[in-house]
Amino acid sequence: MKVGILGGGQLARMLALAGHPLDLEFVFLDPAKDACAAPLGKHLNGALDNSLLLKELGQRADVVTFEFENVPAASVELLAATAPTFPPAGALAVAQNRLSEKKLFQTLDIPVPSFAAVNDLDELKQAIAFTGLPAVLKTRSQGYDGKGQVVLRRMDELAQIWQDFEGTPSILETFVAFQRELSIISVRGQDGEMLFYPVSENRHHQGVLDVAISRPDDPMQQRAEGFVRRIAEELNYVGVLTLELFEIEGELYANEIAPRVHNSGHWTIEGAQTNQFENHLRAILNLPLGSTEAIGFSAMINHIGSLPERTEVLQVSGAHLHVYGKACRPGRKVGHTTLQAKDEATLQLRLSQLQTPTNKAFAASG
Amino acid sequence: MKVGILGGGQLARMLALAGHPLDLEFVFLDPAKDACAAPLGKHLNGALDNSLLLKELGQRADVVTFEFENVPAASVELLAATAPTFPPAGALAVAQNRLSEKKLFQTLDIPVPSFAAVNDLDELKQAIAFTGLPAVLKTRSQGYDGKGQVVLRRMDELAQIWQDFEGTPSILETFVAFQRELSIISVRGQDGEMLFYPVSENRHHQGVLDVAISRPDDPMQQRAEGFVRRIAEELNYVGVLTLELFEIEGELYANEIAPRVHNSGHWTIEGAQTNQFENHLRAILNLPLGSTEAIGFSAMINHIGSLPERTEVLQVSGAHLHVYGKACRPGRKVGHTTLQAKDEATLQLRLSQLQTPTNKAFAASG
Repeated sequence: MKVGILGGGQLARMLALAGHPLDLEFVFLDPAKDACAAPLGKHLNGALDNSLLLKELGQRADVVTFEFENVPAASVELLAATAPTFPPAGALAVAQNRLSEKKLFQTLDIPVPSFAAVNDLDELKQAIAFTGLPAVLKTRSQGYDGKGQVVLRRMDELAQIWQDFEGTPSILETFVAFQRELSIISVRGQDGEMLFYPVSENRHHQGVLDVAISRPDDPMQQRAEGFVRRIAEELNYVGVLTLELFEIEGELYANEIAPRVHNSGHWTIEGAQTNQFENHLRAILNLPLGSTEAIGFSAMINHIGSLPERTEVLQVSGAHLHVYGKACRPGRKVGHTTLQAKDEATLQLRLSQLQTPTNKAFAASG
Repeated sequence: MKVGILGGGQLARMLALAGHPLDLEFVFLDPAKDACAAPLGKHLNGALDNSLLLKELGQRADVVTFEFENVPAASVELLAATAPTFPPAGALAVAQNRLSEKKLFQTLDIPVPSFAAVNDLDELKQAIAFTGLPAVLKTRSQGYDGKGQVVLRRMDELAQIWQDFEGTPSILETFVAFQRELSIISVRGQDGEMLFYPVSENRHHQGVLDVAISRPDDPMQQRAEGFVRRIAEELNYVGVLTLELFEIEGELYANEIAPRVHNSGHWTIEGAQTNQFENHLRAILNLPLGSTEAIGFSAMINHIGSLPERTEVLQVSGAHLHVYGKACRPGRKVGHTTLQAKDEATLQLRLSQLQTPTNKAFAASG
């Protein structure tokens, strides 16, 4: 059985590593000649909207998925007409538009920081009257890892910043002073069965995830599960669905969804009974889902721009290295390390043995 | 960094799946056009003694290993002259000859069932006077999975059986009535550091491993570790080394060694902090070894000749399927399933939900 994936980056690569033991083959459509998933399957090298290659992908694959929400919606619709395609195109459409996303949260009674649609400078000014300053201006689509967003702090910088946005449809959000940034990763099968991983507590550096720590038995677990369940059921979702959340004074606020396996869930490779990649595949193939229970305590450290020495990482007890096979470039995610321990104190100790931008602060606050 | 492997079967495939995250690439030399490791690396398609391909393998690889002890010793020696090759050729030579193997056990004061070298019919008769009947006649080399061996029960069948052996150098061993068949999997680094997995209790069917159950805290663990440590140190071993053992009335007897990752250790993929494949790679690459500690209780069921329905396996809680991508043929190992549980009783329950030739008896006796 063959799985087609739009995109051939590290998420596609880790899906393939999880899928080979399940007797799956893979075909990736990716514009990069050196797409890092390519060694693990067939690589169709071309644009994500190349209709000939999309047709070939649909014909080769028994089921299609995507590794990234910024794939052209039209490509997913085209594929969905020829092969079963999950998650559903409707979920992708919502995830591609921050305004639709926030409105969905509101419809489902999921708390969300104040926001307003912004299409021109006048609307931006009105929006600020509503949200106050500081606030975050974000493009409605194509944003990830802190891209396509800027923090507004003073009224006198509005005109310049809006000019840089070149009239892109955007939204303005209250700048929230959160206590914790959490994410919950869930998986929903074709029969509607839904399972949840323990929430992750996430620290970002320059807009990119730096460290994620799994929090089994977190007091926010049940509330987070309820939110992501409502979203998945509303979207008739199939596959892994991630919800990013802010915790502010004991309440959870939805930030955004990712209709895919997620960086904050990479610890599940060693840290859960069934990892997020295998469960995404089980869901889209209509196979029974695997247990999402945590194995002890886990943390994940991203390697961004460069890789550590293998020996330096592996000499830390409970460390597992995951290199993506990508060329190193500043700001690029090129690998991660999972740390595992039986208790939280040991995990913190092990975490303190590896350097990351936010690590010291995190280890101290954990 | 590139790892060359003599052989491209399921062991090479699982080495590659464990190695990609460590930033390793793979090149396999295997005579089968459809070698199942091939999709995960570069496949040199030819005989294991093809000198041109051996040369190419040595040139492409930074380090070389083998997935199977029945590779030509001369090929390993040739490779060792061009690239670091582990385990050492000396260990391979011992493992390829049952007589050398048993003599090594004796030299190291490791108990071994009575045996005698057999080169002709007269020697066979003398050997029986020493071992008694029943006894097992085995070729000294090229035996695995019950191949190259036959049980002798009556004096009047000797001549016929020896004729079938066509004068192959052999050994005769006492037929032992063991209480348990165990194996211990160890890993030794280039610095001499050695780690041990919990012993596995193994059940065979028609000479082939059917079910292996990990036994953390087994009363025989320490004794088994001592034996395999002596062997590894004597052979100046690097990599994963397996020792198969019989338990007879509270004493352990050595059966044979396998200088490689082993079928009875496949449960380590989900059931140990670091699996045997990753640890073999860490050892041959001179990287720090990973913890061999068990995660709960695990069992492994071989799929021989045919594969179960994926759904049938995956609906069992704690089940993970590993398909090797090989064509199904009678008697051929085509996949395995790992079962995982937090306690032994739950493991037995889950095991009873899957059918195997020895499973019922095993579940009852466990």
